[in-house]
Amino acid sequence: MRIAVIGGTGKEGGGMALRWAHAGHEVFVGSRDSAKAEAAAAELGKAVGRDIRGGSNERAVAASEIAVLSVPYAAHAATLQELQPALAGRVLIDITVPLQPPKISTVNLPAGQAAALEAQAILGEATPVVAAMHHVSAVHLRDLSHEIDCDVLACSDDKVALEKAMSLIRDLGVRCFDVGALRNAIAIESLTPLLLHLNRQQKGRSVGIRITGA
Amino acid sequence: MRIAVIGGTGKEGGGMALRWAHAGHEVFVGSRDSAKAEAAAAELGKAVGRDIRGGSNERAVAASEIAVLSVPYAAHAATLQELQPALAGRVLIDITVPLQPPKISTVNLPAGQAAALEAQAILGEATPVVAAMHHVSAVHLRDLSHEIDCDVLACSDDKVALEKAMSLIRDLGVRCFDVGALRNAIAIESLTPLLLHLNRQQKGRSVGIRITGA
Repeated sequence: MRIAVIGGTGKEGGGMALRWAHAGHEVFVGSRDSAKAEAAAAELGKAVGRDIRGGSNERAVAASEIAVLSVPYAAHAATLQELQPALAGRVLIDITVPLQPPKISTVNLPAGQAAALEAQAILGEATPVVAAMHHVSAVHLRDLSHEIDCDVLACSDDKVALEKAMSLIRDLGVRCFDVGALRNAIAIESLTPLLLHLNRQQKGRSVGIRITGA
Repeated sequence: MRIAVIGGTGKEGGGMALRWAHAGHEVFVGSRDSAKAEAAAAELGKAVGRDIRGGSNERAVAASEIAVLSVPYAAHAATLQELQPALAGRVLIDITVPLQPPKISTVNLPAGQAAALEAQAILGEATPVVAAMHHVSAVHLRDLSHEIDCDVLACSDDKVALEKAMSLIRDLGVRCFDVGALRNAIAIESLTPLLLHLNRQQKGRSVGIRITGA
């Protein structure tokens, strides 16, 4: 599949780009800064022995069937407003957690209750939003030899988009569960501060979650 | 420890009463209906071969050092308002999930954002609230031979109360993690509808969650 990673120069986005390229997908790393995206893409491509392209977020989206949004929450709305025309007709996987630094281990509910709900409101019907990938450690993603001991919870109001996204997420080497309507992103996003709280207790090790009994 | 289970005639409350009595704690099952509580306590006591007392919620709380609130969200505020004087000086473990039947597999944020935050607002400083036990299946709790394949996430603004509650929860036969401030109950409570959504996919089996890497 042709995948755009919006904000692909960040740690989490870079880790996904790496694993998807490794799994045989065509990956386009986007950034507000084209030169930075090109450099990051070249470095990631070299690390994985595959061709990864880089450029502006607009070019990355234009070249893709499915896009992943991996930017800090402070840039979330502005990035989506800018890319809204380019994203029409594509699926968006939103991995954003609405953290409020420096209090990153306490739940912060944004005005729209969840970043993914805010994304869907900005993008409208032309772009179904899937919320997912909020709990997987960037460090683990970037290490291809690391078996990721964390399940992914994914939700959307569009079942076709959800299936497409879940299939792609499984190619990262994780189990992925359909946890219902996009509104349930409130639960997925707000769980991340709790895991960050636990990470601190673990002195830097990254905790994750698993669904049992399924 | 002397434990009151407010709403102990329900499935979840009954399961906790059973396991705590089994672990050697002194358990008092409370209900709005004293006769119903006495009958439930007798039945639970017989099942576990221990003495379990039953009576009104007020009497249960008066006899306890720590109380667990296990009532449907519809009865949450009224029960707390009624018991507020009795609860002063005691720790309250609130296990309430603010479900909105019949849409129980979609997140419902209450006016106060979390049932536990609403409880703390009603009870004030005299009763520290701990939110916990939102994800453990009542069926698994009631079966003493069943090893519970689910971790418990607990949070509170009072560290002493949290430690006391976590120690008690571990006596149920589960791992229990401190996940921070009471505000984080938003995440814990809102995760339950997602697990209920997954249960439906599993055709009635009960899923749970585990923290990995800890």
